[in-house]
Amino acid sequence: MRRWMTLAGYILVPGSHFGGMWRHPYSETDFCDRSLYEDVARTLERGGFDLAFVPESLSIATGPGGDYRTFVAHGAVGSIRHDPSHLVAAMAGVTRHLGFTVTLSTTYMEPYHIARIFSTLEHFSGGRMAWNIVTSAGESNAHNFGHFAPLDSPTAYRRADETLTVCSQLWTSWDEDALLRDKDSGRFADPDKVSTIDHAGEFFRLRGPLSLPATPGGGPVLMAAGVSPRGRDFAARWANVMFAIQNEAAGMAELRNDVRRRAEALGRDPASIRLLAAVQPVLGETRAIAAARAAYLDEIIHPEMARAFLAAMLGMDLARFAADTPIEEVIAATPMRAAVDAGAAVPWLDQVRAEDPDRRWTLGEIALRLARSSSTPRLVGTARDVADALEAFFAAEACDGFVITPTHFPGSFDEFARAVVPELRRRGLVRADPPPQGLRARLGL
Amino acid sequence: MRRWMTLAGYILVPGSHFGGMWRHPYSETDFCDRSLYEDVARTLERGGFDLAFVPESLSIATGPGGDYRTFVAHGAVGSIRHDPSHLVAAMAGVTRHLGFTVTLSTTYMEPYHIARIFSTLEHFSGGRMAWNIVTSAGESNAHNFGHFAPLDSPTAYRRADETLTVCSQLWTSWDEDALLRDKDSGRFADPDKVSTIDHAGEFFRLRGPLSLPATPGGGPVLMAAGVSPRGRDFAARWANVMFAIQNEAAGMAELRNDVRRRAEALGRDPASIRLLAAVQPVLGETRAIAAARAAYLDEIIHPEMARAFLAAMLGMDLARFAADTPIEEVIAATPMRAAVDAGAAVPWLDQVRAEDPDRRWTLGEIALRLARSSSTPRLVGTARDVADALEAFFAAEACDGFVITPTHFPGSFDEFARAVVPELRRRGLVRADPPPQGLRARLGL
Repeated sequence: MRRWMTLAGYILVPGSHFGGMWRHPYSETDFCDRSLYEDVARTLERGGFDLAFVPESLSIATGPGGDYRTFVAHGAVGSIRHDPSHLVAAMAGVTRHLGFTVTLSTTYMEPYHIARIFSTLEHFSGGRMAWNIVTSAGESNAHNFGHFAPLDSPTAYRRADETLTVCSQLWTSWDEDALLRDKDSGRFADPDKVSTIDHAGEFFRLRGPLSLPATPGGGPVLMAAGVSPRGRDFAARWANVMFAIQNEAAGMAELRNDVRRRAEALGRDPASIRLLAAVQPVLGETRAIAAARAAYLDEIIHPEMARAFLAAMLGMDLARFAADTPIEEVIAATPMRAAVDAGAAVPWLDQVRAEDPDRRWTLGEIALRLARSSSTPRLVGTARDVADALEAFFAAEACDGFVITPTHFPGSFDEFARAVVPELRRRGLVRADPPPQGLRARLGL
Repeated sequence: MRRWMTLAGYILVPGSHFGGMWRHPYSETDFCDRSLYEDVARTLERGGFDLAFVPESLSIATGPGGDYRTFVAHGAVGSIRHDPSHLVAAMAGVTRHLGFTVTLSTTYMEPYHIARIFSTLEHFSGGRMAWNIVTSAGESNAHNFGHFAPLDSPTAYRRADETLTVCSQLWTSWDEDALLRDKDSGRFADPDKVSTIDHAGEFFRLRGPLSLPATPGGGPVLMAAGVSPRGRDFAARWANVMFAIQNEAAGMAELRNDVRRRAEALGRDPASIRLLAAVQPVLGETRAIAAARAAYLDEIIHPEMARAFLAAMLGMDLARFAADTPIEEVIAATPMRAAVDAGAAVPWLDQVRAEDPDRRWTLGEIALRLARSSSTPRLVGTARDVADALEAFFAAEACDGFVITPTHFPGSFDEFARAVVPELRRRGLVRADPPPQGLRARLGL
């Protein structure tokens, strides 16, 4: 089967992986206006994207020590967070073939709710949904669920496994031919084809069936973003699509190959696992313009926001350090807590320092570096340069597609759609013809 | 202030209060097709309705002994049930001023999820949402939440009170002027105007704030359907709009006046409590046609479905009784369980028998009677007759408006909009001019 590059747009406001997004002069800021998201969805659909990807967090953005004020004051990522399924519902309503990723938590949601939300969305969208499954590790998610017993990571993954087992059974609790709708006889459905699930496990007891007929694919496409070994096992068991926040090709390829190996060990076809990597294009008509635009972006990252972002990633309070403190000194002075939220703080820091081992990074410089594109590749150049970079990742099988993260919202998607997608089409990397119906078919699953 | 009659459409499929709805020759049956609901919403908006009302149940329709097969086989109410907030999202997306009632459960949902869903929907719809608050009493709701500790009624209401306290605080955790969005200074919001709620109660611990700015009304309009004294106290404390399933004016007026008294005792303005009563119009160009249509409806109620409906309402298994068994004998033979789901089984039966004290009703006749319009008034006649009946309820202050329940879907709404609404407009009972912006203003709250 022909291998197509998958393209997704990352819908995250008012900041994104670029921490100064809302400040950009081309950015819109009516983040509570439905029509903004409707416009984004139309742009992505018309522009040849396969997916809109909506992440999740169950708290306002909060750093170590419970600080949310810095994030809110500067409009960092997560200081505005809509219900992700409703953000997607608004976008699905105005599109016909664009796919959507809804991120929902297995730790803080009930399987019956999750199963029913996705069933309604799958029916209403004609099978265009993916579920990005998260366990919502990290204390900030717990702020608004303090009455839940804390789950350690193994327990959270057991709960996630059980949630997936239950949802999968609910999604297939109606046989595909259960509906009769015979007005003459009065037979609406064949009750022999609508079954209980009678689940009794460690976390849940549900009888079923779901109150909705089956959707063609038997549920949404499943996505995960495993980082830890246990997370990779989970992805290998359930997911078709992996989401990677990795700074370079080697990290993407390692994740992709490792999860494929784990999936194969479970009897799955390793080729059925796709990896989408987050990247941040910074485009210009010429390389000089692109470089100037990239430099401009640095100017609109507020230093306090950058520092709060780094503090959250490292899981440590940085207030007592001046911006010019060498990062080595910061790390030596405060034992780093496990950076569970990001999951990649230490490898990222090591990687940045390895790029230039003799350089003495300051706290402010490292913070700025992180706030530029989080720990994902920034691709600066002409449309052809960016297409080259994407093609290189794709051809090396470091990944199977990209989640485009914006520097200005939603203009980054317009620019990418108008300049880069046609170039990718010319190279035969993305589809030029209308995609097949439904997300599963579109992704070739 | 001018008193306007409120009109709502009841969105419940494949059955409704009329148990044979989907079988009607004019009914559509693509209940998983988004465009069906989009069409209904446009019909209601254009036709002068104020609201679309979406009820909720957290299980497929299930009778005593766990029987869902009869309901599914005959397409009774609740054998299809979408996520109510997503059914509303689809309808809100294609309308500009129609209001919506989303029913969500305080027993089986988390306050943070509820608050965020309504905040997103309020922002996206321009303040057109109402929350019909239910505690999901009754065993059928528990089928898919068997791992929850069962709550007795007082505990469920304490949880509901605490949920409302938390949601109200989350909805006002951002001051109305908290957003700054000053690109020059980089100040996105004023953190002094975004506050934690620091709630620690019997059921919940939440820090807040919500991850969304405040909506103009400080949350959706609140609705409730109190029947028990505790339910009425709850409504008196929180609700602006009551939903009544009452067979006659006296019952509506009693509920309305009682909740108003209870609200006044709590220091609220009693006039701020509105009551909407469910009614089922059966229209005809002439009275003879209307009567013939009503008789036709009886023919498409499947007797097995009617019996299952009655069994669910009474909370007893009726399988061993023949259809011609006198109802007195049925009741004498089996002690009636508390009909918690319906909450009105015994008064309804007494009322039906009081209409004709000498008649000896059979089980089959009583079941048919219930399956016709549940325990709500059926209004059979010309548009003028129906308008007369509605005006009589309204003028007597038995209620402040109506939830129109369909006999065929969605044609009942078209007929009502085209025939009855113009008559109500001529009488000055409903608005002819464009309504004010937002549901709260539209309802005069």
